Amino acid sequence: MTLDPAFILTLSCADRVGIVAAVAGALAADGGFILDSQQYADRDSGRFFLRIEFASDRSVADWHLVLAPIADYFVMEWQLVDARVRPRVLIAVSRTSHCLNDLLHRWSIGALPIDPVGVVSNHDDLRDLTEWHGVPFHHLPVDAANRAAQEAALAALAEHADLVVLARYMQILSPELAAQLTGRCINIHHSFLPSFKGAKPYHQAHRRGVKLIGATAHFVTTDLDEGPIIEQAVERADHRASVAELVATGRDIEAQVLARAVRWIAERRVFISGQRTIIFR
Amino acid sequence: MTLDPAFILTLSCADRVGIVAAVAGALAADGGFILDSQQYADRDSGRFFLRIEFASDRSVADWHLVLAPIADYFVMEWQLVDARVRPRVLIAVSRTSHCLNDLLHRWSIGALPIDPVGVVSNHDDLRDLTEWHGVPFHHLPVDAANRAAQEAALAALAEHADLVVLARYMQILSPELAAQLTGRCINIHHSFLPSFKGAKPYHQAHRRGVKLIGATAHFVTTDLDEGPIIEQAVERADHRASVAELVATGRDIEAQVLARAVRWIAERRVFISGQRTIIFR
Amino acid sequence: MTLDPAFILTLSCADRVGIVAAVAGALAADGGFILDSQQYADRDSGRFFLRIEFASDRSVADWHLVLAPIADYFVMEWQLVDARVRPRVLIAVSRTSHCLNDLLHRWSIGALPIDPVGVVSNHDDLRDLTEWHGVPFHHLPVDAANRAAQEAALAALAEHADLVVLARYMQILSPELAAQLTGRCINIHHSFLPSFKGAKPYHQAHRRGVKLIGATAHFVTTDLDEGPIIEQAVERADHRASVAELVATGRDIEAQVLARAVRWIAERRVFISGQRTIIFR
Amino acid sequence: MTLDPAFILTLSCADRVGIVAAVAGALAADGGFILDSQQYADRDSGRFFLRIEFASDRSVADWHLVLAPIADYFVMEWQLVDARVRPRVLIAVSRTSHCLNDLLHRWSIGALPIDPVGVVSNHDDLRDLTEWHGVPFHHLPVDAANRAAQEAALAALAEHADLVVLARYMQILSPELAAQLTGRCINIHHSFLPSFKGAKPYHQAHRRGVKLIGATAHFVTTDLDEGPIIEQAVERADHRASVAELVATGRDIEAQVLARAVRWIAERRVFISGQRTIIFR
Repeated sequence: MTLDPAFILTLSCADRVGIVAAVAGALAADGGFILDSQQYADRDSGRFFLRIEFASDRSVADWHLVLAPIADYFVMEWQLVDARVRPRVLIAVSRTSHCLNDLLHRWSIGALPIDPVGVVSNHDDLRDLTEWHGVPFHHLPVDAANRAAQEAALAALAEHADLVVLARYMQILSPELAAQLTGRCINIHHSFLPSFKGAKPYHQAHRRGVKLIGATAHFVTTDLDEGPIIEQAVERADHRASVAELVATGRDIEAQVLARAVRWIAERRVFISGQRTIIFR
Repeated sequence: MTLDPAFILTLSCADRVGIVAAVAGALAADGGFILDSQQYADRDSGRFFLRIEFASDRSVADWHLVLAPIADYFVMEWQLVDARVRPRVLIAVSRTSHCLNDLLHRWSIGALPIDPVGVVSNHDDLRDLTEWHGVPFHHLPVDAANRAAQEAALAALAEHADLVVLARYMQILSPELAAQLTGRCINIHHSFLPSFKGAKPYHQAHRRGVKLIGATAHFVTTDLDEGPIIEQAVERADHRASVAELVATGRDIEAQVLARAVRWIAERRVFISGQRTIIFR
Repeated sequence: MTLDPAFILTLSCADRVGIVAAVAGALAADGGFILDSQQYADRDSGRFFLRIEFASDRSVADWHLVLAPIADYFVMEWQLVDARVRPRVLIAVSRTSHCLNDLLHRWSIGALPIDPVGVVSNHDDLRDLTEWHGVPFHHLPVDAANRAAQEAALAALAEHADLVVLARYMQILSPELAAQLTGRCINIHHSFLPSFKGAKPYHQAHRRGVKLIGATAHFVTTDLDEGPIIEQAVERADHRASVAELVATGRDIEAQVLARAVRWIAERRVFISGQRTIIFR
Repeated sequence: MTLDPAFILTLSCADRVGIVAAVAGALAADGGFILDSQQYADRDSGRFFLRIEFASDRSVADWHLVLAPIADYFVMEWQLVDARVRPRVLIAVSRTSHCLNDLLHRWSIGALPIDPVGVVSNHDDLRDLTEWHGVPFHHLPVDAANRAAQEAALAALAEHADLVVLARYMQILSPELAAQLTGRCINIHHSFLPSFKGAKPYHQAHRRGVKLIGATAHFVTTDLDEGPIIEQAVERADHRASVAELVATGRDIEAQVLARAVRWIAERRVFISGQRTIIFR
C-alpha cells in the first residue's frame, strides 16, 4: 500500500459518543489508511480535538465530499489539507539574527516544512542573510510619524502569508493589526512567561536572581505577551551570569523554541483553545 | 454523562485499514465514551498498537462480548481491564532504600496506582521501612549454596504478583527465572544504557569522564541489561564529582525513572515490541 | 597528609587587590591544605565572596586567631566552621508529606548533612512519619484566635535551630517572624517564581497554559514569595495535564529543589547578596 | 581600576600547600586584580589545576617574568595569554551544514571568541556558506588512492591553527594525524558516548530503543570515539521517532554541544587529565 499522498485532517467539536467512530468509519469505507491519529477531550470545556494523518489515492476534493456530512452533523470546525502543502510564512525581524538564521537554515536543509515568502524588518541589517537564502527582503523602517503606514505595508505583506512569525521583531503591533492577525501570528518572547513580560526581560531576570532563564513562543493577541503559549524552554543560569551572558544563553533557547513552534504549526499540530494551546506532538 | 467506571482497552495487531473504525464503531454502538485514545503504527514491523480509555455503564464482561469478534477478525492481542483494578506488585530490594522508599511513599499518598503485595530482599535491612507501610516483608538470604532454593522462593512469591520490580536488587536472576518472568519483571539499572552495563556503573562512568550520568528502567530478559528500555533520565556531572557524589546524584534519577516506569505499566501504557517499548504517555 | 579535620571558611568583603593572596598566604603559612576554593567578584556591587575548604591539624580556635587580623584588615563578614558540624534544622510542614519524607529519608541515609532538631506542624498528620525517623514532632494547631501564640511557640522552637525549612508549610509567617528569621528561613514555593506567586500556583499555571511547571526554593522575607532565590527547576507539562497531574508532577520538583537548597546551605555554599544569592556548587 | 587588558593564567602541577598563596601573592604584589579564579584538586591523581583571569596594566612579558620562578618552583605546566587573543580555528566538515552554520553564525555575531582561519572539506557543498562568511574554504576530496596526500594537505592547514574542529567531518583521521593533533583537535560524535561508537549511531540508538539521544564533543585520540569527553547533552526521543527524526533532533544537540566545547577551549577553560577533562565553566 502506498503511503503517499498523505492528508492531514484536523477538527474540533463538542465532545460526545461516536465522533471517532464516524470519522474513522468514513476513512475506512473509502480506503483511507491512518498513519497517525491523536485526540484530546478537554474535560473543562467539553470540547474534543482530533488530528489524523492518513494516506489515500483519492483527492482532497473527494475527501471533502466524504467528510463534510460528518462535520456538519457534529458541528465541527475542521480542515483537510494535503500534507505536502506548506504554509506560506512571513518572518518579521529587527536587528538580531539568531532566530532568522536558525529558521532559514532549517528550511534550507529541509528540516522546516514552510514556504518563506518574505522577511520584513524595520532595519536593513539582515538583508544579506535573507537574500543569500533567496528569500525576498522588505525594509520597512518605522518611526513615530510613519507607524500607521508602516503597519499597513506589513499587513499587506501578511495578506500573502498563512503565518506571520515575529522572530525578534522589536516593535509592538498595534491592537488593530494584532486583532487582524489573530490565530496566524506568533512571537518569541525572551523570558519564561508569565514572568518578565514586556521590555528587557533578561535585565529583569538578572535583577530578580532567577536560576533558570527561558523563552516562550506564543500567539500574538491584543494583550501584550498574554497570548496562548505554544512552547517554552529554559536553561540554567547562576549568579556569575551577567546580563550579556543571559542574553547569549537566551539566544539558543529562543531559536529552538521558536523553530519548534513554527514546525508544529506547519505540521498542523497546534490548536487554540481559549488562552491555552493543544499540541499534538 | 458519567465518566465512571472507566475501562482500559489495549491491543496490537497487523496494521490495515479499518481497525480504528471497527473498535470505535463498536464502542459508540454500545455507548462507550472515549476519554483518551492513543495509537501507533510501526512502519518497520507493520504492527498497530492502540490504547483506549473509555467510560461506560456496562460491565467488563459485556464489553468482552462486544469486542471479541473484532479482536478475532483482526487477530489482535488484546486486554480489557477495569481502570480501577491495580496490578499486584512484588518489589525486590537489597540494602539501599531510596527506590523502595520512593515507591512506597508514592503509593501511600495515592500517587502510584499499584497494590504492593510484598517486598522481598536478600537482606533484612529494609524490613522496618516496609512494615511501617503495612506491606509484608520477606527475607530471603542468598549464598552460593542456596541460590536455587532462594530463587524458587522468590518465584513462588512472584506467582501472586502481576509485576515484579527489581528496585536495586543486587542479584542477577538466573536465566530460568528471567525467562519465567518475561514481560512482567522490570529493573532499574544505574546507568544510561547501553553505556556501562554490568557492575559498578558509576565507577565506570567516573573513569570514562562522562558529563552526564543516568539511569534506565528496562524489562528483564535473559540478556543482562539488554531488555527493552522503558524510561531513562540523566543529570549533569562534572569533573569535581567523586564516585560517591555520582552515586548520590544517581539515587534521585533512579528513583524517578523507576517510579515512572512502574506507573506507566500500572496504567497499561507500555507495550513491548521486539527490543523496543511503545509507551502511550 | 591527612585531609581531616576539614574546615570551611566563608567570607565577603569589598573587592580589592590582595584578598586571596592574604587568605591563601595565611593558610599556607600554617599548613592549611586547600581542598576546594570558589570565589566570585560581583562587578555590580563591587563585593567579593570566597568559600574555602581546607584541611589542617590545628583547631578552629587556632585558625580564628590566624585569620582574624586579615578579616579585620579587609573588613570581612566571615565564618569559620568545622566541616563536621551540621546545622540544626527545624522543619515546618502542614499535611503533605512529600518534602518531609524526602528530607528525612536523605538525612537517614547520610545524604543530607543536617541535624534535624524537630518537625513542627499545624496538623498532626505527619507525626508518625516524623517519629518513625526518631525526630521530635511538635503539633502547633493554628486558627484565627491563637495565631500570635502559635507563632510564638514556633519562634521558640526556631531559637534552637540554625535553619528553619518551610517544607510545604501552608501558613504565611507574620512580618515580625519573617523578619526575625531573616537569612535563616527558607521556603519551597510550588511555582517557577516570579510566576504564580501566592495561592494555588498549579491552578494559575493550568489556567495560563504554561508548557513547563516549576518549583522555587527561596529565603523567606517579609515580602511574600519575593525573597532571594536559591534554586529552581522545571518539568514539562502539556495540554493534557489536569491540575491534579500538575500537582503530582510538581511534588517531585519541589522535593528535589528543596533538598538541594537545604544541602547547599548545610554545606555553607549559599551567600545572600541583596535580592540574589551566590551559590558555590 | 581598569579591568582591561585582562590575562588568563592556566596551570597544573602536583598538589601541595602554598600554590594559591604563591600565585595570588605574586599577582597582588604587582597589582594584578583577580576577576575570576577557579581551581580543582584531583584527589585521585594528586594533581592541582588553576585558571585565573586577572586585570593589569602590565604586559604579558612582564607577567611571564613575575610568574616563571613560581612555575619553576612548583614544576607547573602553565600558560599565560592575553584574554583578547583568540585561538585560530580550522573547521573540518563533510556535507552536513548544521554545525558549520552554527559555529560561523555565533562567530559572526561575536558570540564565539575564535579566529576561523579556514574550513576544509572532502566535499564542495559548504563552500558558499563558508565564503559568504568571508572564511577561506579548502576543498580536499579524498578517495582510497589519495588518502595520504589528502591528510598531508589537511595537516599542512592545521599547522596554522591552534585548534582543529571536526564539525561532522565524516572521515576517520589516520592514527598518525590523530597523534600529531593530540590535544588540539576535537570532534562532535552524534551519540551519547560511550554508547553507540562508530558509524550510524542514530540507527544504533533506534534499534536499541533508547528514550534519550545525545551528542558528545571530545578530544580526538588514536582510539576512535574514546578521547576525553568535553561536553554532552541529550534530548528525549520516543517510540514514534524514526531514524530520520532522531537525526533531526540530533542536529540541534550536536550544534549546541560542539559550540560549547569550542567556546570553552577558546576561553582556556578546558584541561585534559588522562582520559577525563577538567572544565572551569
